[in-house]
Amino acid sequence: MLNQSTQLDLMFQALADPSRRGMVERLCRGPASVSELAAPFEMSLPAVLQHLQVLEASGLVKTEKIGRVRSCSVESKALRSVEHWISARRSTWEQRFDRLGAYLSAQAEAEKKK
Amino acid sequence: MLNQSTQLDLMFQALADPSRRGMVERLCRGPASVSELAAPFEMSLPAVLQHLQVLEASGLVKTEKIGRVRSCSVESKALRSVEHWISARRSTWEQRFDRLGAYLSAQAEAEKKK
Repeated sequence: MLNQSTQLDLMFQALADPSRRGMVERLCRGPASVSELAAPFEMSLPAVLQHLQVLEASGLVKTEKIGRVRSCSVESKALRSVEHWISARRSTWEQRFDRLGAYLSAQAEAEKKK
Repeated sequence: MLNQSTQLDLMFQALADPSRRGMVERLCRGPASVSELAAPFEMSLPAVLQHLQVLEASGLVKTEKIGRVRSCSVESKALRSVEHWISARRSTWEQRFDRLGAYLSAQAEAEKKK
């Protein structure tokens, strides 16, 4: 089991490529076989499989062999953990402005009372 | 000007490193000088500057020389565009389940009427 930071490294790394983001985008609309997933991309099957491997290693995508077909799907929990990291940062950033706003209001109030 | 996909590549790439995520985390609490930013990390100043360069190239962080001090701050707009990409994917994924739910309810309703 990888620690959370390493997992985030791998997930952000996996999303740092337009083809892999395209694959995640496709899988968010529902599971797909490897060939369905490869169809919109102008690349060889080995190249698709390599991208898929990066996505799978990051935990963002899981694949499962059903009969002779490998089915791919998105791991929503992993996607949520990336989203959570970003939104927690935004929230810290916004709180800073809220505090700044409160401070400035208090200053203005104090000025009035003078 | 970089296109949006290339910009996303660079931002996700920039976030794929724990030190750089730590720097973004710090800057979300407010602007900092390079030495303040470097303080919590056990790394040389050149290494810090290199990470900072990656963050700046991605658009997530901007730096500005004020007198003799280089001040770093987070570009909230860039952080929001990463958040937007993720949340749009989650939304597609959730809509899929909503549609699936609606379909199953309709099926159950049709069964009842038989």
